[in-house]
Amino acid sequence: MLFITLEGIDGSGKTTVSKMLKDSLMQSGHRVLLTREPGGEPLAETIRKIILDTESNPTPWTETLLYIAARRQHLDKVIVPALKDGIIVICDRFMDSTSAYQGYARNIGVTDVEEVQNIVLGTTKPDITIFFDITPKEAQVRLLNRKRNPDRLEKEDQKFHEAVYAGYQMLISENTERIKVIDSRKPINEVMQQVKFIVDNAIGELISNNNE
Amino acid sequence: MLFITLEGIDGSGKTTVSKMLKDSLMQSGHRVLLTREPGGEPLAETIRKIILDTESNPTPWTETLLYIAARRQHLDKVIVPALKDGIIVICDRFMDSTSAYQGYARNIGVTDVEEVQNIVLGTTKPDITIFFDITPKEAQVRLLNRKRNPDRLEKEDQKFHEAVYAGYQMLISENTERIKVIDSRKPINEVMQQVKFIVDNAIGELISNNNE
Repeated sequence: MLFITLEGIDGSGKTTVSKMLKDSLMQSGHRVLLTREPGGEPLAETIRKIILDTESNPTPWTETLLYIAARRQHLDKVIVPALKDGIIVICDRFMDSTSAYQGYARNIGVTDVEEVQNIVLGTTKPDITIFFDITPKEAQVRLLNRKRNPDRLEKEDQKFHEAVYAGYQMLISENTERIKVIDSRKPINEVMQQVKFIVDNAIGELISNNNE
Repeated sequence: MLFITLEGIDGSGKTTVSKMLKDSLMQSGHRVLLTREPGGEPLAETIRKIILDTESNPTPWTETLLYIAARRQHLDKVIVPALKDGIIVICDRFMDSTSAYQGYARNIGVTDVEEVQNIVLGTTKPDITIFFDITPKEAQVRLLNRKRNPDRLEKEDQKFHEAVYAGYQMLISENTERIKVIDSRKPINEVMQQVKFIVDNAIGELISNNNE
């Protein structure tokens, strides 16, 4: 039905808002699946563990391929069946994360990563992607309050997270139709309002397209 | 220095011959690394376990990407450093296995698999590839004598193995320069003689090219 992906750097608030969005859509009577990447499916979760393990040492392309392998599994087994069943799918991180984190910040090339993802992922692309805009410096303050240990990607230095942010800016400029940018520095309820506005619009468009 | 890959269906004798080839080259004074795929490096071996586990259920593209992820890790950490060090690398299975098993037999498309491998693997391609030619029916007799339990790929039905063989035939016809076909139905010593002849020729060419 509607495939929504949420993107942004760590600490941008997207995971918190994803749960609020799910609840809000369900209260409006929609069937909703909230899932996340990497993971969202047993084998994909196994791959997730390899990727995020701080003892793991994949080279940049190996890391990239593990993300895309987990993604295709998640798509085939979870996302596509749900969409076919008329369910709204909200996915916390998807293909743009790989383009920003690996393609841009790991410096293996956004074009090459996009080309591989185009071949592998086929036609199931997000209908809308919401980018939670906050700079790495601003996000840092929020991350200090996190209680769990950072994973291998979160442990990267500030320069890496700045590069990820720059990668996202590039993707946004190239996908102005699909990627909607919201100001994520605002209080959580205001962020949620912005997200709700975008999603309600998308659902409205979908309904009017179906009625035409 | 010289990058040799060995290809063929299971039971073609390539693993046995690979060890004989290594010994023979070392006796001639060469430094040799014998390695295998999937695996050949700690993280790649972890990925191998996921791929070959009979409990695992990757979709065809996920399986493919796991193979290529393990391959890039193996290349970066083991094969490329060895080649730079002047070592002859013999690799039991490499990129053609993925084209034949996943691209052709799993039916996701040889062209797509080759395109992804071209993007991901870059310029390090095998100098020569030896295909151990034996039909699945003929190989079956040898496999019956194996003591260990078959892995997830080996457990596939006869139709799958026939498709793999057909996939290899296609690759051979498209890479007549690189892929050398040997008759693997012969007794092991004769097979080894054929392999030795091809490899000695390749080493001879390499030396004469370097002297030019």
